[in-house]
Amino acid sequence: MNKIDVNVNAQLENNKTAAKNREFFKKNNLFVLNIISSPGSGKTSILELMAEKLKDKLCVITGDIQTTIDADRITKAGSQAIQIETGGSCHLTAFMIEKHLSALKLSDCRFLVIENIGNLVCPATYDLGENIKVAVVSTTEGDEKPIKYPSLFTRAHAVIINKIDLLPYVNFNIERIERDCYKLNNSAKVFKLSCKTKQGFAEWLLYLESLLT
Amino acid sequence: MNKIDVNVNAQLENNKTAAKNREFFKKNNLFVLNIISSPGSGKTSILELMAEKLKDKLCVITGDIQTTIDADRITKAGSQAIQIETGGSCHLTAFMIEKHLSALKLSDCRFLVIENIGNLVCPATYDLGENIKVAVVSTTEGDEKPIKYPSLFTRAHAVIINKIDLLPYVNFNIERIERDCYKLNNSAKVFKLSCKTKQGFAEWLLYLESLLT
Repeated sequence: MNKIDVNVNAQLENNKTAAKNREFFKKNNLFVLNIISSPGSGKTSILELMAEKLKDKLCVITGDIQTTIDADRITKAGSQAIQIETGGSCHLTAFMIEKHLSALKLSDCRFLVIENIGNLVCPATYDLGENIKVAVVSTTEGDEKPIKYPSLFTRAHAVIINKIDLLPYVNFNIERIERDCYKLNNSAKVFKLSCKTKQGFAEWLLYLESLLT
Repeated sequence: MNKIDVNVNAQLENNKTAAKNREFFKKNNLFVLNIISSPGSGKTSILELMAEKLKDKLCVITGDIQTTIDADRITKAGSQAIQIETGGSCHLTAFMIEKHLSALKLSDCRFLVIENIGNLVCPATYDLGENIKVAVVSTTEGDEKPIKYPSLFTRAHAVIINKIDLLPYVNFNIERIERDCYKLNNSAKVFKLSCKTKQGFAEWLLYLESLLT
């Protein structure tokens, strides 16, 4: 058995479990977002703001190599959050999600957000059963990320450009990144956000609302 | 053959090739740095500055999922750079390095820098045959990175805290991150750098010089 077989088998097995997760989400009337970004692009800060607004309408599963820092921040902001410590794995799998679904109290929840491990590569290719993938990229990371990581940006239904409050201090061409996002996926929605000033957050919430209809 | 066996075997095979690479580096009088960080933390900007100073004393192997943007920037700044496009892989392996060593023109080169794929997880555990690992974290990523990614920060001989010019605009406790770095590895050297203002760059060059003696 060579390495390629192992990877293909792992993906096929993953996809079967993702389909089961998708059924579970549908039955429980949940809209599921799989959020993917580099470490430190601000995923958890976005989720904190969402938790403050959505409270028990939002549930979060947050993946982390180690520590429960992210889940603690989201719980404190008002939403239920459970943490998956992956040990060494650089992405979440459908199995990891399936294993933790029973721990969620779903009564009022409409949105389940899965905060993936901070990594632009492997998380893009593992289906977890989500409705949509959301890519987050911050203005401090450089505007060439879509063309360097096309496997994520071709699959992302929504792209959040975060930390726009830092635009005056960094070399970041926001028109270029928008253009590259649309080139890779012309149906993607692009949002410009600052968690510090809350600029753009109302548009993001409107988009979330539209997903439920 | 289960998944764990495959991974362990892959690591063992990788380590054998890493040992061969290490021998090659020694024979060619090269000091080798394996630079690891999130996407967008500024690895390539640091290498551009190093290339401007070190010129043909520096060779760079840069790993990327796709595109030759990074290698082009370094070549333009004055040093030899070759690019490994990994396709889908989220880390470089010793085999990938071995395969490309013959493409390097090493006559005057003293430092070989391997710019790993932007990822704080898998690159930390793959030995490439380097002398030291260098972790880069930027002030916009959050100061909790060492405790969230201990497998990298326990192994890193040097840690560069990059983008210190942005400190006035971000919530980043530089004392906390230094303390956490030393807790995980008390022999690590911590450098504070800005590629924009060049603050801290002289100290980084002095450190590099000291590695050759």
